[in-house]
Amino acid sequence: MGRHELEYPKDAVNAVRRHGERAVYALKTIHGLVNTAPILHVSFNPVDSPFPVTLPMIGQMGSFARPSASLGDPLDLYLHGYVSARFFSSARAATEPMPVCVAASHVDGLVLALSPFNHSYNYRSAILFGHAALVNDDDEKRYAMRLITDGVVPDRWAHTRQPPTAAEMQSTSILRVSIVSGSAKIREGGVIDDKHDLNDQTLRDAVWTGVVPMYSAMAEPIPAPYNKISLPSYASDYLDEFSRENKEHSIAAAKK
Amino acid sequence: MGRHELEYPKDAVNAVRRHGERAVYALKTIHGLVNTAPILHVSFNPVDSPFPVTLPMIGQMGSFARPSASLGDPLDLYLHGYVSARFFSSARAATEPMPVCVAASHVDGLVLALSPFNHSYNYRSAILFGHAALVNDDDEKRYAMRLITDGVVPDRWAHTRQPPTAAEMQSTSILRVSIVSGSAKIREGGVIDDKHDLNDQTLRDAVWTGVVPMYSAMAEPIPAPYNKISLPSYASDYLDEFSRENKEHSIAAAKK
Repeated sequence: MGRHELEYPKDAVNAVRRHGERAVYALKTIHGLVNTAPILHVSFNPVDSPFPVTLPMIGQMGSFARPSASLGDPLDLYLHGYVSARFFSSARAATEPMPVCVAASHVDGLVLALSPFNHSYNYRSAILFGHAALVNDDDEKRYAMRLITDGVVPDRWAHTRQPPTAAEMQSTSILRVSIVSGSAKIREGGVIDDKHDLNDQTLRDAVWTGVVPMYSAMAEPIPAPYNKISLPSYASDYLDEFSRENKEHSIAAAKK
Repeated sequence: MGRHELEYPKDAVNAVRRHGERAVYALKTIHGLVNTAPILHVSFNPVDSPFPVTLPMIGQMGSFARPSASLGDPLDLYLHGYVSARFFSSARAATEPMPVCVAASHVDGLVLALSPFNHSYNYRSAILFGHAALVNDDDEKRYAMRLITDGVVPDRWAHTRQPPTAAEMQSTSILRVSIVSGSAKIREGGVIDDKHDLNDQTLRDAVWTGVVPMYSAMAEPIPAPYNKISLPSYASDYLDEFSRENKEHSIAAAKK
């Protein structure tokens, strides 16, 4: 195990208030859930609307200052995705970073109980709170672009056309979120039914109860009409493992 | 086709600002994306924090006043999930509904291009803006509980222990979101590469390009140790179709 795992300190912002026994504050767990989510939900408050806005984006945890940092270290979140000018007044973009909340959620199964009330999901969800600012430095931008591309398929960056053109650098927006706090919530295991339902033999003869594992899968890759090569192993190995590992994880979660 | 499809009017709050050609404002499409998302991301602004908070919840579109309303009609969103007291000052809960944003996102594939810049996802995402209030009426609460349970597995409500106990009614929180506006964004199809990359034969001999379809799947249901019956057809038919239909959809999206 080595050193003690770092945790985000529990406070009014990040504390899990319901089912506290499902809460996790370890950086390693939270950052891992973010990095393995195909999509993140990022929420902002625009200056001109009463409603928060939640946008799907892709992103990865990283440290430009110390690229060798591990998942359990304090990290920034780099997000790729267009952020409308209305979120930033031009001055604020540089001088006053914007408070955001980022959610990463994995659904691992449907928990089907005897009563609707005891129905649940197996899931792993993380949220991070932080301040987002546009990345202006080209080196940091390239670092984040590589991190995010390799988050889609590991090692993809090195196997695509390099370097990005000046126009591509110019029209790519990267946000760096400096993390203030975060938490995760994990539900795993089987069904938990109430005693009075378990004692009802007629009910138990009528209602199926158990867990249906659920996971993200990849289908067979479809080459572009102009593609000229077969899928290299850096990608095929990852894609093969993706479905298998996710499936195994969802089944293991149900059996815990 | 019949009547013209209703759309959410485009305004400053819901307008899709980037890739406007991917925007959809039809109620039927948006509500359909919400109802088929296993999980929704709901954002609020707590009174005591500078950060919005985004929570994963489950929910379904419906109309308590007109339960026979169809997907393309104006509907409310019913959410199941604990909402911490800090989101509501006690007076506001009843008298001043809370502005929320709700996101429903489906990832349909990885779009792997010759350049990192042209990488993309196939996806269908919807957001709704509205005002959330706790449902206090027991009849409306039961209507929403049934709607949401049947959103997990169609017809599940009628095949579980009924009715909910007084204690269950008491400790179930349902939020009704009155919708103000919404929009959806859909990306489908194959890779789009730049001409200068397509003309680079060395590059095309080195980089695999195409789409990897991605979808949500269910594994074999795992009965509870105390389960006594085999999985009834209302559930097994749905679960079998779920993986197959999602897979077919992701492949069809890639080929569009």
